[in-house]
Amino acid sequence: MQPKDIAKDTANIVQNYLTYKAVMLVIDQLAETNPGEAIWLRKYSSGGKLRDAEAYLEEIMSEPRGKELALRIMTVRDSIAEQTLEFLPEMVTSGIKQDNLTLRRILLERLTRSQSEISSDLSSLD
Amino acid sequence: MQPKDIAKDTANIVQNYLTYKAVMLVIDQLAETNPGEAIWLRKYSSGGKLRDAEAYLEEIMSEPRGKELALRIMTVRDSIAEQTLEFLPEMVTSGIKQDNLTLRRILLERLTRSQSEISSDLSSLD
Repeated sequence: MQPKDIAKDTANIVQNYLTYKAVMLVIDQLAETNPGEAIWLRKYSSGGKLRDAEAYLEEIMSEPRGKELALRIMTVRDSIAEQTLEFLPEMVTSGIKQDNLTLRRILLERLTRSQSEISSDLSSLD
Repeated sequence: MQPKDIAKDTANIVQNYLTYKAVMLVIDQLAETNPGEAIWLRKYSSGGKLRDAEAYLEEIMSEPRGKELALRIMTVRDSIAEQTLEFLPEMVTSGIKQDNLTLRRILLERLTRSQSEISSDLSSLD
């Protein structure tokens, strides 16, 4: 597994996730302006269809009411991507560093506790 | 749903995914050096445990053989993050633009085809 492959797989995961978020946003917007369409889109997008975003979009375009929705979802995901991706590397890097630190602290506490338990067990043997 | 929330959720997804990749890498490395440990880690990490990376790491640290593995996984995910995240925004942006283009082309072809089918249906009526 090369870093390049990992980056490619991760990019794919992110693209799928942003498409999922775009669909949720479009459903939210439609709920205000066209509730019937919102219900249809919510129902259509259920059952794990969004796990493969490109297949989902190609499929929804074959529905009579799906063409316009597909174009809207594509525009929204493009705009979400522009607004969020820039901050992503920094957010993930600091998230990992912070969580690694927390986990190391927990581990150290556990080791110290078990050390002191061993000592107290030993001293109770005296 | 604000862009900031979407960025945060996406960062979380990426952190989980990089942790998953780190576990897979450590399993691959162990398969060469310590096959028994590789089998144990593979088994331990199955069943959707890796969906919440931080809970997984905290849990594995409570296993006698898990402390060292947890530290190793944390180091590996840190290093994968450093090697891949920088390229991620550009990769996702161009992936979305490219796929949007392809989908718009497919849609246009379908619309053109149905238009020409309508025309030929109409002319066969003459």
